[in-house]
Amino acid sequence: MEIPEVVILRLPMYVRALKQINKTDFKLVSSQELGKLLSITPAQIRKDLSYFGRFGKQGRGYNVNYLLDELKQVLKLDKQWNACIIGIGTLGRAIIRYPGFGPAGFDIVAAFDSNINLVGQPIRKGLIIQPITELCSTIKTNNVSIGIVAVPAENAQAVIDSLASCGVKAILNYAPISPFTHNGIVIRNIDPTLALQSMTYYLD
Amino acid sequence: MEIPEVVILRLPMYVRALKQINKTDFKLVSSQELGKLLSITPAQIRKDLSYFGRFGKQGRGYNVNYLLDELKQVLKLDKQWNACIIGIGTLGRAIIRYPGFGPAGFDIVAAFDSNINLVGQPIRKGLIIQPITELCSTIKTNNVSIGIVAVPAENAQAVIDSLASCGVKAILNYAPISPFTHNGIVIRNIDPTLALQSMTYYLD
Repeated sequence: MEIPEVVILRLPMYVRALKQINKTDFKLVSSQELGKLLSITPAQIRKDLSYFGRFGKQGRGYNVNYLLDELKQVLKLDKQWNACIIGIGTLGRAIIRYPGFGPAGFDIVAAFDSNINLVGQPIRKGLIIQPITELCSTIKTNNVSIGIVAVPAENAQAVIDSLASCGVKAILNYAPISPFTHNGIVIRNIDPTLALQSMTYYLD
Repeated sequence: MEIPEVVILRLPMYVRALKQINKTDFKLVSSQELGKLLSITPAQIRKDLSYFGRFGKQGRGYNVNYLLDELKQVLKLDKQWNACIIGIGTLGRAIIRYPGFGPAGFDIVAAFDSNINLVGQPIRKGLIIQPITELCSTIKTNNVSIGIVAVPAENAQAVIDSLASCGVKAILNYAPISPFTHNGIVIRNIDPTLALQSMTYYLD
């Protein structure tokens, strides 16, 4: 049975909320409580979780620790993932310094830029800017599964195509384009301008 | 008639694609062509646009320039919007330098941090870090409509509550939390960790 993508998109939010609850003394959580924390209806939460098994008894709530472990396993978050980043401008450097990736199990292990003047520069311990020509070999040698695209809009599609041809199956794209996707490759776009433009509709 | 939020969320993508087409010689675009560019079905595009009037003749396609103008008006993108940012760490500074906001009509006109050692520091021309105690007065004086939250997770809800109490109606949240929302306030979350965690499911 194929799980709808919208369900997969919500699971990381459940994981984050369960981690938060796990820091407290609460051992059980109801779909009502989870729903309140996440602004999702309890019915939606129960339906989403039912795809992956029976996690709770009616009226008793979910075991926080057990559900957290199971969801992490479903999402394959019980292991480390290696990522590379392409485009080491202001944005790329901020992404590399972003404190949220490491604790979540994501390591940026390689950095690339097409500007040969940047090549060889250290960004942080163990991370030196490489030429784009080493993309495929580095991805294979370092077991890189995820490509992070932080190049200007006009170069983004070419970089995404390169990542795909090097065998990367997951791409996090920060460039302001709607990329063409390749078969078997999953892509998420981070675009704060689109987010802003979808809010002004509601303003006076 | 209330427009579904999912429709509003897609309109900025249409605006971006139409701007791109507008730079070429093409004066007309079909829902098929737009759909290909955005990986959205033509039927979905036609349905989305039908909420706002009749923009195209069957089989003839949409007038690019006209549709672009109309959608910009619907989204209120035909004016400048002032934003403030709270949290001037690595992430906050990268957001301030992000090149995509200005051309889209969004100006960061005020910057705040709770660290008094940062207060008074210039970040760029015309932008000096202010104490958080000046949040409400600055928002009112500078006609700020949008708050950008770049503080650590543990402080984010309090900052969001402050923005709401100061009259801000749109919030772009970069902190890794699912914030409680206030009535009449629209919020979008930018969370690259959640995006990564929703991709590993598909990896081997």
